[in-house]
Amino acid sequence: MKKTTLLYEGKAKKVFKTDDEEKLIVSYKDDATAFNGVKKGSIEEKGSVNNRVSNYLMGLLEKEGIPTHLIEELNERETVVRKVQIVPLEVIVRNIAAGSLSKRLGLEEGTKMASTVLEYCYKNDDLGDPMINDYHIYAMSLATEEELKTIADMSLKINTTLTTYFASINIELVDFKLEFGRTSDGHIILADEISPDTCRFWDKNTGEKLDKDRFRRDLGKVEDAYQEILKRTLGK
Amino acid sequence: MKKTTLLYEGKAKKVFKTDDEEKLIVSYKDDATAFNGVKKGSIEEKGSVNNRVSNYLMGLLEKEGIPTHLIEELNERETVVRKVQIVPLEVIVRNIAAGSLSKRLGLEEGTKMASTVLEYCYKNDDLGDPMINDYHIYAMSLATEEELKTIADMSLKINTTLTTYFASINIELVDFKLEFGRTSDGHIILADEISPDTCRFWDKNTGEKLDKDRFRRDLGKVEDAYQEILKRTLGK
Ligand SMILES: Nc1ncnc2c1ncn2[C@@H]1O[C@H](COP(=O)(O)OP(=O)(O)O)[C@@H](O)[C@H]1O
Ligand SMILES: Nc1ncnc2c1ncn2[C@@H]1O[C@H](COP(=O)(O)OP(=O)(O)O)[C@@H](O)[C@H]1O
Ligand SMILES: [Mg+2]
Ligand SMILES: [Mg+2]
Repeated sequence: MKKTTLLYEGKAKKVFKTDDEEKLIVSYKDDATAFNGVKKGSIEEKGSVNNRVSNYLMGLLEKEGIPTHLIEELNERETVVRKVQIVPLEVIVRNIAAGSLSKRLGLEEGTKMASTVLEYCYKNDDLGDPMINDYHIYAMSLATEEELKTIADMSLKINTTLTTYFASINIELVDFKLEFGRTSDGHIILADEISPDTCRFWDKNTGEKLDKDRFRRDLGKVEDAYQEILKRTLGK
Repeated sequence: MKKTTLLYEGKAKKVFKTDDEEKLIVSYKDDATAFNGVKKGSIEEKGSVNNRVSNYLMGLLEKEGIPTHLIEELNERETVVRKVQIVPLEVIVRNIAAGSLSKRLGLEEGTKMASTVLEYCYKNDDLGDPMINDYHIYAMSLATEEELKTIADMSLKINTTLTTYFASINIELVDFKLEFGRTSDGHIILADEISPDTCRFWDKNTGEKLDKDRFRRDLGKVEDAYQEILKRTLGK
């Protein structure tokens, strides 16, 4: 499997075409951005950590029957994935109030939600990824009712699997962002990444943040947090 | 029916207790506010217009089988209503993109929505009435699933009735805000008001705005717009 042309360079990854029309190669970068690209920086070895952690977690999900884009890890930073048409939604799954939800609803960070909260944001950098609801999604034809039902069900199942897994390595899964895509034969599968860039991880004993909030909020020991997640998940 | 103590003074209305525990008297003011109370002013005869227009529209809805808080109009500004426990949601029904939706989704004002959009805002002035979704509503116990289903169904039925009615008086019903409440025996009924303060009305021929946007956006002829709505609805 060889990279051919660069299809898209995003904030955290490069996506390449391959000689197989159905497959892409994703290459994870160390670049870090926050607040819709306003804050910019770099986190050493982030690409390598995120690639391996994301693949490990998608492997766990596949075992639970959740279809993902993962095909094969090529090396520390690069992975072959199934090409999909991305549904232009960021699906946010929240178990504990933090970040924008805390601000919006006036809930102190750390407040356990009485029930799991799903949020949909319209993936559109120019508009700042605004939060939308199911009615907006249908009115703008971003997904069909059937697709959104599948996405919501899969998101909740992913949450159950990941929350249990992270608890086993002494981590509270506070919230995370997912992206889904349509395969060429019209199925919805999990795409993009699951990593310290896209999740909030809090150590269960100390409450220490082990995710991108260390970068967003200038908390220091950013690289250490990513390495700690690599160690607890892959044992290295 | 006599007013006893003032229960609550809001931005647009005063609400009084009466000697009947189940009934309140609402008194409509001429005070006008916009942008979460940042812009303040007054619109002559607004209270009197809104009271009569709202009662007229709630009367139409009752005929269509939609339960409302309306009991009896006392005079030009005052109405006896059924006391409810307000569900702390502003339900926004949108047929055409305008206002915050246009900004949030980058849709030009006047774009017809492919399907009716419902939005829920958490009625909380300190937080600026933030938009929320059904998951937030359940997690914060603002309404039960059954109640929210009733609220959504009633909102869509109200939209059908009102859109048809306003078309008959040559007005495009662009969007509007509803509030619902729980009666003492646990039923959901329509409460608050339906008026040029809470709806966007565009003349079907000229596109002229006949609602509170004339105040919000300093378009002039504010009083005229309210009087025009009174004339087209009640014929006076
Ligand atoms: N399997 C896939 N097929 C096609 N596109 C994908 C797939 N997985 C992820 N993507 C997309 O590739 C891009 C990944 O790059 P990233 O740097 O995260 O981008 P962004 O700056 O848009 O977040 C995203 O736009 C993501 O939606
Ligand atoms: N039938 C009712 N029973 C109890 N409260 C009501 C009823 N109808 C409306 N209300 C409430 O009375 C208040 C009306 O005053 P208003 O000036 O519109 O207030 P606000 O500034 O909160 O919008 C609102 O808080 C509204 O929710
Ligand atoms: Mg991304
Ligand atoms: Mg009000």
